[in-house]
Parts: sequence; structure tokens; C-alpha cells
Amino acid sequence: MTSISIIGSGKMSGAIAEVAARAGARIQIIKRRATSMSAARPGLEYGVLGDDLTGDLVVLAVPYGAYASVLDHYRDRLAGKIVIDISNPIDFTTYDQLTSPADSSTAAELAALLPEGTAVVKAFNVNLGDTLTSGTNGTTPTTVLYAGDYADAKMSVAALVEAAGMRAVDVGPLTRARELEAMGFLQIILAALGKTRYESGFALLP
Amino acid sequence: MTSISIIGSGKMSGAIAEVAARAGARIQIIKRRATSMSAARPGLEYGVLGDDLTGDLVVLAVPYGAYASVLDHYRDRLAGKIVIDISNPIDFTTYDQLTSPADSSTAAELAALLPEGTAVVKAFNVNLGDTLTSGTNGTTPTTVLYAGDYADAKMSVAALVEAAGMRAVDVGPLTRARELEAMGFLQIILAALGKTRYESGFALLP
Repeated sequence: MTSISIIGSGKMSGAIAEVAARAGARIQIIKRRATSMSAARPGLEYGVLGDDLTGDLVVLAVPYGAYASVLDHYRDRLAGKIVIDISNPIDFTTYDQLTSPADSSTAAELAALLPEGTAVVKAFNVNLGDTLTSGTNGTTPTTVLYAGDYADAKMSVAALVEAAGMRAVDVGPLTRARELEAMGFLQIILAALGKTRYESGFALLP
Repeated sequence: MTSISIIGSGKMSGAIAEVAARAGARIQIIKRRATSMSAARPGLEYGVLGDDLTGDLVVLAVPYGAYASVLDHYRDRLAGKIVIDISNPIDFTTYDQLTSPADSSTAAELAALLPEGTAVVKAFNVNLGDTLTSGTNGTTPTTVLYAGDYADAKMSVAALVEAAGMRAVDVGPLTRARELEAMGFLQIILAALGKTRYESGFALLP
């Protein structure tokens, strides 16, 4: 049975937990503090930052600026896990740039900080949260684009997405995270400007 | 009446000519050589590289690598025109990177080469040609994303797109061309891999 740990408890954490629940996965949500943890249900447990991670897949569902503090707790314990980077490191004071290096990506930066050989997969960053919760985007199943350098890890992420009734599309090696982050940036700008709804966004048509 | 000059005679040239024809624009297509120019019809004239440009809008529908030779002919004559950059400068030997600078774009590079104050608009690079020719992408009108620093120039491009029955969406200043080029790159990879059809691709849902 697939198991997933989601670090963070914001909107994207909830959306990915919903995806995992549809896929029948065992879910752990890691919060910053041990408050409001009463909503646990079968298949869903809560933990606080520092607790052991029970999932084989680990999603960093915190802003990119908080990655360092997450790694303070978990860097060594992420060895052997499949680490999913969903971030869009937008400078929200200006909405005018990404804070990741122009020729790289948060995913590549993260991979460089983790123990050698840790499989990082970029995924879900081009999905507005509501399209994950609902599983649909317009009239089509939501498409999840993903990139990474480890085939097995990518297959695990694709299997989760597909078990949740969505379409998973491999866009290539982790270097493609640069382009996924650019596209995620565009999508968030367009949603903020009202050019698309937060319930839809970009769709990859078949 | 809108008038447009399209430099280049490949697939995207034909697709944008079709858009312009639907919009009722006067069209000039500039070819490299004076061969097969017999297909002119009312509202459509042909020219060869070096001929004067009759359009207020000028589309560079040649590969990015050919921009320099186009500028040899036209740099000074582009002053006062609205120059539309549609390029996706993919390294087609590897399909693994863009040849534009990581922190910039072909559009910004082009603007720097033109006479000061020339209005460059990035547009059409996230549209596979067939979606321009048909005007539809899946069940929705094709959306044309565009970026630029000159409001009047952007309005002219948007007016052409809308007169052709499509949706035009302003994504911001010319710096956003970086992200449009990243997204165009992803789309071409996905079409080449068969993950989307050349008749569809990414759609921005309302």
C-alpha cells in the first residue's frame, strides 16, 4: 500500500491529502505545532515537525523559504524516500519574478541539499489546489506534470496520481523543473489577475 | 485596417496568415526567394527578403537562429513597427534545452538589437500552429498568451487575435517572455512525445 507523508498543513497539503485518499494511500500530515490534530480518520495520522516520517513518498508542502527549516529536521531521514517538490517560489511582494536561480529550479536546489542519491520528483506545481481536490479541470481529468531523474520514483508518483483518477504526464529529467516552475508562475499570475479561475488553470489536452 | 507582414514561409507563417485572414487584415508574406509566389489572393501579397514591409505588425516567423540575417535586412526599417516574436529557441539536436539565456528570452534579446523604442511583443509561441489555423483547441477557442512593455502594441496584437475569433490574454511585461518560452518548450516536448496532439496542447481554461 502506498504511504505518503505531507509536511505542511496549508491548502496544497489538504489538496494532496485528498489525492492520496482517493488513491487509497496511508497518509501522514506533519504540522508545525501539535494543535488541531483531532481530525484524524482511518488511514490519516498527524504528526509534528521532527516526528519520524512514515510515508515512502514525502511531499514538501511548505513555501520554498521554509525548506531550510524542514531540512534541519529531516535531511538525513529523507535518504531512501521519494521527495516531491511542489513549490512555485514566486516573489509575492512583486509577483514579478521567481526566487529560484534562472538557470535552475527549486527542485534542483533541493536535490543538491539532500543526501546523495535521494530521488527528488517535481510534481503538482502546475496544478492549482482545487483541481487536485476535485480531480477535474474543466471537462477533463486533471493532468499532473512531473519531472525527475529516477525512473522508479517517477513511476511511484505517477501511480499515485493515476490511482486518484487523474492523468500523470512525464515531462522528462529534473532539469525540466525549471520550465515547470516557469509555467506554474504564469498560471498563478493568471489566476491572480482573474484570467483563469483557481478551480481550473492550464489543461493539457489529449 | 490592420496590416501585417510575416517574414518567413514555414508552418507558423501559414498559421498566422490564416489568423490574419480571419481578422480581415491586409497580409504580406516575405519569403527568402522569389519562388512559388503565384498563390497571392486579394488581401495577400508576397515579397522577398529585403522588400519594404507594408504591415504595421511584423511577425518574425523564422527560427531564432535566422533573426540575425533578418535584422541585416530590416533592423532600421523595424523602427515604428510592432514586432511580434513567436520563437521557441529549442536545441532540436537534444530537445533538452533552450538556446536563449536562462535569465532572459529571445524576445528581450531581440528588443535589445532593435532601434530604441521599437515595440516587441511576445505572442503565439505557446500555440501549436494547427490551433491557430483552426482557431480552436479542444472544445474551447484557442487562447493566445502575449507579453510586452508597450500597451498600445499589445492592444494591437490582442485586437488581431480577437478579430480572428480567439482569446487574447496579457501575461504582463516583456520579462514574462522567459516563462512563455519555457512553457512553449514544454509543449513542444510533449507534442513530440505524443503526450498531446499537434492540434491541441495546453489550453488556458476560463
